[in-house]
Amino acid sequence: TETAMAELKELKKQLAEQNEGEAAKKFELKTPKGTRDYGPVEMAVRERAFGIITNVFKRHGAVTIDTPVFELKDVLTGKYGEDSKLIYDLKDQGGELCALRYDLTVPFARFLAMNTNIKQIKRYHIGKVYRRDNPGKGRFREFFQCDLDIAGVYDRMVPDAEILRIMSEVLGELELGKFLIKVNHRKILDGIFEVCGVPEDKFRTICSAVDKLDKSPWAEVKREMTEEKGLDPAVGDAIGQYVCRKGQRDLLDVMLKDEKLMANERAKAGVEDIALLLDYLEAMDVLQHVSFDCSLARGLDYYTGVIYEAVLVGADLGSISGGGRYDNLVGMFEGKGKQMPCVGFSVGIERVFSILEARAKENPDIARPIELDALIVPLGDLDIKERMKLASLLWANDIKVEFSYKRKVKPLDEFQRCEKNSIPLALIVGDEELKQDVVKIKDVREGERDKGTPVPRSQLVAEIRARLRPTVLTPQ
Amino acid sequence: TETAMAELKELKKQLAEQNEGEAAKKFELKTPKGTRDYGPVEMAVRERAFGIITNVFKRHGAVTIDTPVFELKDVLTGKYGEDSKLIYDLKDQGGELCALRYDLTVPFARFLAMNTNIKQIKRYHIGKVYRRDNPGKGRFREFFQCDLDIAGVYDRMVPDAEILRIMSEVLGELELGKFLIKVNHRKILDGIFEVCGVPEDKFRTICSAVDKLDKSPWAEVKREMTEEKGLDPAVGDAIGQYVCRKGQRDLLDVMLKDEKLMANERAKAGVEDIALLLDYLEAMDVLQHVSFDCSLARGLDYYTGVIYEAVLVGADLGSISGGGRYDNLVGMFEGKGKQMPCVGFSVGIERVFSILEARAKENPDIARPIELDALIVPLGDLDIKERMKLASLLWANDIKVEFSYKRKVKPLDEFQRCEKNSIPLALIVGDEELKQDVVKIKDVREGERDKGTPVPRSQLVAEIRARLRPTVLTPQ
Repeated sequence: TETAMAELKELKKQLAEQNEGEAAKKFELKTPKGTRDYGPVEMAVRERAFGIITNVFKRHGAVTIDTPVFELKDVLTGKYGEDSKLIYDLKDQGGELCALRYDLTVPFARFLAMNTNIKQIKRYHIGKVYRRDNPGKGRFREFFQCDLDIAGVYDRMVPDAEILRIMSEVLGELELGKFLIKVNHRKILDGIFEVCGVPEDKFRTICSAVDKLDKSPWAEVKREMTEEKGLDPAVGDAIGQYVCRKGQRDLLDVMLKDEKLMANERAKAGVEDIALLLDYLEAMDVLQHVSFDCSLARGLDYYTGVIYEAVLVGADLGSISGGGRYDNLVGMFEGKGKQMPCVGFSVGIERVFSILEARAKENPDIARPIELDALIVPLGDLDIKERMKLASLLWANDIKVEFSYKRKVKPLDEFQRCEKNSIPLALIVGDEELKQDVVKIKDVREGERDKGTPVPRSQLVAEIRARLRPTVLTPQ
Repeated sequence: TETAMAELKELKKQLAEQNEGEAAKKFELKTPKGTRDYGPVEMAVRERAFGIITNVFKRHGAVTIDTPVFELKDVLTGKYGEDSKLIYDLKDQGGELCALRYDLTVPFARFLAMNTNIKQIKRYHIGKVYRRDNPGKGRFREFFQCDLDIAGVYDRMVPDAEILRIMSEVLGELELGKFLIKVNHRKILDGIFEVCGVPEDKFRTICSAVDKLDKSPWAEVKREMTEEKGLDPAVGDAIGQYVCRKGQRDLLDVMLKDEKLMANERAKAGVEDIALLLDYLEAMDVLQHVSFDCSLARGLDYYTGVIYEAVLVGADLGSISGGGRYDNLVGMFEGKGKQMPCVGFSVGIERVFSILEARAKENPDIARPIELDALIVPLGDLDIKERMKLASLLWANDIKVEFSYKRKVKPLDEFQRCEKNSIPLALIVGDEELKQDVVKIKDVREGERDKGTPVPRSQLVAEIRARLRPTVLTPQ
């Protein structure tokens, strides 16, 4: 019966394997369309970028919040105009209808509307957002956003100017190359539309046509306005006179002299805002990065004031950062006409990742996933428990150390592993070292030259720390 | 016509406001059931906890990966047994069927199955997971998990022992109080079931009944086994003889002497594993935290070897961390019988948050959301651009500084703001200071005693750095 039992077991096992094999065949092994895994190297790049960015944000006194990955469907409804079709809904499994967040701005506005005790906040939020878009080269359905916004009633243009300073610090410190921040104002655009005779109910759709001027020539944009959106061609031509202009204070002067435009209340308010903003940007040492560009429109509906977008000069990447003022979004939730003015920006962090990942491929030292200080290298038949004892001593002293999980270890392989992963020290122990109560420290960066120096165990932690300490420079 | 236009505009505005008000009324302003926002203080607590944990993980040479928040539905199917009903599905909007991830372990196994070039990895992953459970006190539908796993073919029990060492470092360094790690082995449980006469197809369901022994008395668990799950009461009694035991090496000795149990192949293998593990845990200085506990079963189906769970001694919180060995999960995806043995653990990070949040309420210094070094305090009618120029100088030197966005500032209010947010320095500038090209530095920690010291601008950065530097201690 024992053989029968064994046979039965074997049969059972084969059957189980077969079933598993079939279950596995049923689906393709992949992540969902438009999503991806980040491996250790990509994560090291990502964490480096986030580290630089959060350092800038904290330097400006910002705090961070987090919101759920999904929201009640109603929270997202009516916020994204034409793009609402890209929202991911959760399945109705009974209970509330929910959808994955589309950006971090609407959840922030919802958070402010719920937390009425918060009268002002400078907050950043780094998190994933979701869009059922057609994924293309470098475009994903799940991607990170990285936003900083300032909410509260403040003196005109002061937080707006700091936002642009923060944006320029982030782009500068990520070392992405020369960048240009295009600035415009929704009230100037609306004023132009009003002066040119665009019907009020066509403002937003004409605005989103203007937004395409960075990618398409004016003729193409005009065609969209007139043929697709039914605008009078003469009105289109009039708009073209305005929105193709760019400059700095020179353009501001041209507009201030334009009596027809300045007679328009909205345009006047917008131009005055920009004038003040440019003054502040000069005081904050940002003006050299800024262009006042009337063709900038930004796609989203909710902007009400200054808008901006940064591009890398000489790169055909599209915008690397953008944002603007949105004074009415929180009020849409409150429903009591209560105002919570907001201004903010978003870093195009996925584009930043691609640039930094490409760089890390050329120079792996930029982003190292393993941060070990030392590797324990056992000699001969040393009891595996000796590795464990030594490692425990070092871990207890916050020294980053690892040892092989395999009983049989070739020291040369371990030295190579150190080199490959930039682990600076090898800690060599054999029965002889054990007897003498020492550990041989070998600096792998020295290669063959360093044969290892025996260090008594009692001095081991101090000696490792000394070897790891960066060269001390005389303070300035 | 101008008044008519104005009237029309006003009417339009009122109508728009009314519509917005109605839209807002339609839904309750809240986050979805079982989810929550994290405000700045909670985030500071959360980041502090993650900082401590990732420091431990990196000390052990771990790397991190990230996977999408949703997976193909098929990836999750058949992995969670009875709990599969808690999986959140995305709505079928055309295209692939997807579901939110239920844990980080199955996505990790899917990642390993896809990346066949990875033969071994020690990875951690901190991310949100989703369960359509009934939310209760401290239980959420969206919550963080924090996992570390070691994958690869290694010498028996070596990575398992390091996992328990890492777990004990994490729990110790989070300063949660005394903890106990219960350890058991799936093969011992299976061996017990086999010896007691549980039919093989009832192993997992009886196992999940045993798992309730930490919350329910044996009589209740036995009732579930016999009445709900149809087990012969005599078999239940036999199981009870085994699974209510706990100890350390003493219990191991009892089992080794149990001839009936040791005649069972699985039980024998499990007991031998535990014996080796206890040896290694002693070498790693973890044994004092460990209890060998035959009642520990763990709910999940996929464990195949050592299992463990940590509890805080004297707290009625349930487990604060848990995990085990799962050697077949990756193979379920590969479908080729290829083995990728894994062992890992998860920190019950939400419970950790609750403990630390309660502490931060009593002692706010534990987690400060604002990390500013200094606040600029303008006097009198100083041009707002002077605040901006001073701040820009300091930001460019990586000094964390902020200024009020309001034109009119009361210095006393600003000093109070420093105190409230633990901002150590106030930088006072008025027209007089401007004329003399100085800034007055006042150490707010000194209170009324410090009236401020004028410092020339050229020395300002160095002086601020010196004031922020922690007291220098003589190196050991």
